[in-house]
Amino acid sequence: MSETTPHWLTKRADLSPNKKAIEFEDGSSITYLELFHRSQSYAKKLAKLGLQKGDHIAILSTNSVEMIQAVYACSYLGTVVVLLNTKLTLNELNQQLLDSDAKMIISSGSFKSKEFAIQQINYRDLESVSEKQIGITLNEEICLDDIFTMMYTSGTTGFPKAVQQTYGNHWWSATSSVLNLGLHENDKWLIPLPLFHVSGLSTMLKSVIYGMPIYVLEKFDVEKVHDAIMNRNVTIVSVVTVMVQRLVKRLGNNHYPNCFRCMLLGGGPAPKSLLEEAKKRNIPVFQSYGMTETSSQIVTLTPEEALNKIGSSGKPLFPAQLKIDHNKTEPNQIGEIMVKGPMVTKGYYKRTETNKEVFENNWLHTGDMGYLDEQGYLYVVDRRNDLIISGGENIYPSEIENVLVQIDGIEEAGVKGIPNEEWGMVPAAFIVCSKPIDMKVINTHLEKYLAKYKHPKEIHVINELPRNATNKLVRHRLGK
Amino acid sequence: MSETTPHWLTKRADLSPNKKAIEFEDGSSITYLELFHRSQSYAKKLAKLGLQKGDHIAILSTNSVEMIQAVYACSYLGTVVVLLNTKLTLNELNQQLLDSDAKMIISSGSFKSKEFAIQQINYRDLESVSEKQIGITLNEEICLDDIFTMMYTSGTTGFPKAVQQTYGNHWWSATSSVLNLGLHENDKWLIPLPLFHVSGLSTMLKSVIYGMPIYVLEKFDVEKVHDAIMNRNVTIVSVVTVMVQRLVKRLGNNHYPNCFRCMLLGGGPAPKSLLEEAKKRNIPVFQSYGMTETSSQIVTLTPEEALNKIGSSGKPLFPAQLKIDHNKTEPNQIGEIMVKGPMVTKGYYKRTETNKEVFENNWLHTGDMGYLDEQGYLYVVDRRNDLIISGGENIYPSEIENVLVQIDGIEEAGVKGIPNEEWGMVPAAFIVCSKPIDMKVINTHLEKYLAKYKHPKEIHVINELPRNATNKLVRHRLGK
Repeated sequence: MSETTPHWLTKRADLSPNKKAIEFEDGSSITYLELFHRSQSYAKKLAKLGLQKGDHIAILSTNSVEMIQAVYACSYLGTVVVLLNTKLTLNELNQQLLDSDAKMIISSGSFKSKEFAIQQINYRDLESVSEKQIGITLNEEICLDDIFTMMYTSGTTGFPKAVQQTYGNHWWSATSSVLNLGLHENDKWLIPLPLFHVSGLSTMLKSVIYGMPIYVLEKFDVEKVHDAIMNRNVTIVSVVTVMVQRLVKRLGNNHYPNCFRCMLLGGGPAPKSLLEEAKKRNIPVFQSYGMTETSSQIVTLTPEEALNKIGSSGKPLFPAQLKIDHNKTEPNQIGEIMVKGPMVTKGYYKRTETNKEVFENNWLHTGDMGYLDEQGYLYVVDRRNDLIISGGENIYPSEIENVLVQIDGIEEAGVKGIPNEEWGMVPAAFIVCSKPIDMKVINTHLEKYLAKYKHPKEIHVINELPRNATNKLVRHRLGK
Repeated sequence: MSETTPHWLTKRADLSPNKKAIEFEDGSSITYLELFHRSQSYAKKLAKLGLQKGDHIAILSTNSVEMIQAVYACSYLGTVVVLLNTKLTLNELNQQLLDSDAKMIISSGSFKSKEFAIQQINYRDLESVSEKQIGITLNEEICLDDIFTMMYTSGTTGFPKAVQQTYGNHWWSATSSVLNLGLHENDKWLIPLPLFHVSGLSTMLKSVIYGMPIYVLEKFDVEKVHDAIMNRNVTIVSVVTVMVQRLVKRLGNNHYPNCFRCMLLGGGPAPKSLLEEAKKRNIPVFQSYGMTETSSQIVTLTPEEALNKIGSSGKPLFPAQLKIDHNKTEPNQIGEIMVKGPMVTKGYYKRTETNKEVFENNWLHTGDMGYLDEQGYLYVVDRRNDLIISGGENIYPSEIENVLVQIDGIEEAGVKGIPNEEWGMVPAAFIVCSKPIDMKVINTHLEKYLAKYKHPKEIHVINELPRNATNKLVRHRLGK
């Protein structure tokens, strides 16, 4: 039976009205009661604009209080939130806007564009909408089976698809995490990651579910994160590998305060040397494994093991399950990682065929490769389908390849990740051309169709792509 | 959609195999891995005895590791556990055994009786059953919609009915509590209450869900509880009013250690003077409100409010809702307390009619009276239907009245609670007789049909019972 709960923000505003909900870098903050009123106000304004239960609303925004209000406003209206990556090009955004069936796009002023495929409103204009005389009843309850958010991920085909996350997925993610990390009265979680990614969003939701203040940065800045941990009583921070690298360097021979208890590391593998370095400095790095489809981390090291199982992502969270898709019973055998649990998405939006392929009795084929050691700890050896994780952003080679072959004269393209000191990995392209091509042409085309972080940092012209017997591209042999 | 999770104990044994799960008063303890193996062993033995998925199994036991193993064994088999109150008479027990459709009764040796209506086995005999050659698959997952436990409560009619608690009810109860009380790495919860009551059972389940050791006493003993808080690093204890009274007295001018952070007070109202006394000594008493039907507390004060809202039970836990059943919108208006939430029972076993009466759109009529103050804090003014709470045990006047009128010569009987310094309340009976009756006859009858704690402490012979215009007994006017 589907469960209902009171609306999370309404409930939190009732339980902890005057408690600090969110702190910002300028020193300002907002209480749960204020967040509640502002979100309800946004909801009424959106209703006035004609939006209603079941509609899809896209949000294009860097981290801000307005963005958080907009997300909660959607939940009060019963609309589905489509979270857009601000780094995408207009073309990529329009693709997602159309695919997601969004009716409107809410954004900060800086993302104003006349070329969006659908109606756009910025925060300022939204705020000037009158709330008067709207006969709207805002949701007082949340049904856990309802879809709350959608986020795009590309996957193997190179065509982005929307991961649907229910309220229940987010709820279970939040409660699972608390069963692993505990919950202290002094907890304050720092978000230096975008709220349009699941790690940022999930922490934003934890704030309301836990009654725990979060400190939200507009974007990652090593000085600001360092300062927050050293001086602002932050106890937990979510990071990706590149951030750990910079933070370790910034810390030097100093030490973090005792109240700082968890650096939750997601978004791809971390070099063992870095983890060793962090351990040496007593930085409580918790490696984890998760993806948009699991509504944030689904596998994490426990506090007890964080410093003893370096290199492992840990064990699946309490309500979650994990198995390696092979018939071997011995440990240390590599296979595809499969996951199951109430935080796992019920499927991609409008992708019936893909959903049939990737789900097997409620188990999700992640496409990632890994193994379990003798004690059942997960080691991820390869992210799915040649996925390139660059500074925490997922990049799918096929998406870049698709864009490259649209260029007149490029017959074939292969993309793979190459190591990069700063970003972990960056994409490198290998193209087969039928005529000489000006690099400027390629760059102009990439600018138009691909977010900057997806642009190949190297482009090599070669005679033919390495293919296997069935003519399938073998990406790892590119450039070798 | 119904959610599944891995089996809780299997999961915990995987995550924290060597962590202490349960400590006992003799200083011994058991790890999660040991508890897992022993529970699975019990499950296989029960299977060997012919018990299988869907069967109902009764447990009659004081607190012990065997009892805990038996409960988890049932969950591995997929059988429903009927938890019996050890204070009941043989007659009362047989009533519940038959009503619950239990197939077998598991008990400690001290409860052996040839007069049980169904087959009985004690722990020692169970342990001697061979586990060999049993083709049984134990549950690896838990389906949250499945019924896990049943506990009897009497209610207005005087005929006990079984509250059905699903795995989901218990899961939500445990996670709701952690969102209120937090979860610290050093937490250790003391259980001085019987595991056959929901407050004891729910803490036993929290141990496995949280990975938190519990310290289990066979029964309440003020010296042992005092010692555990003072010297054994207990951080939380569940108590009823009479225990707080004795503990406060025992503490004298001493202080509890700082790590002791919560005395969770359930099972009926506490005198304000006692709460003030506790506050004076910095004892962190958290008043709460709950019942078997809500799978433990559903309303609790937050840590911040525990010492400021004395007399209130607090606000409903995060996923729970509460309202007062009247049409008044002003605060402080008394009415029936109604509750809703995923920890609330889906209904009484085989009581279709009662279920129709007490549930209204998933809201449960508790029968208890109370009001909400201006800030929405609950004050319980009267427990349901003249319920007498005596030392944490619920006593229903109608049940005693039904037993009294079976005695030849007693025409009518009325029972009400009267204040008692030690137990809070005790029952007093008022009888109308058609002939003189020997007190010995009454006592012998009570011994046979009613648990000792339900026996009236006073019996008054009167000429007629106070009744209202519709001839309904007005219990509060008894003896006035």
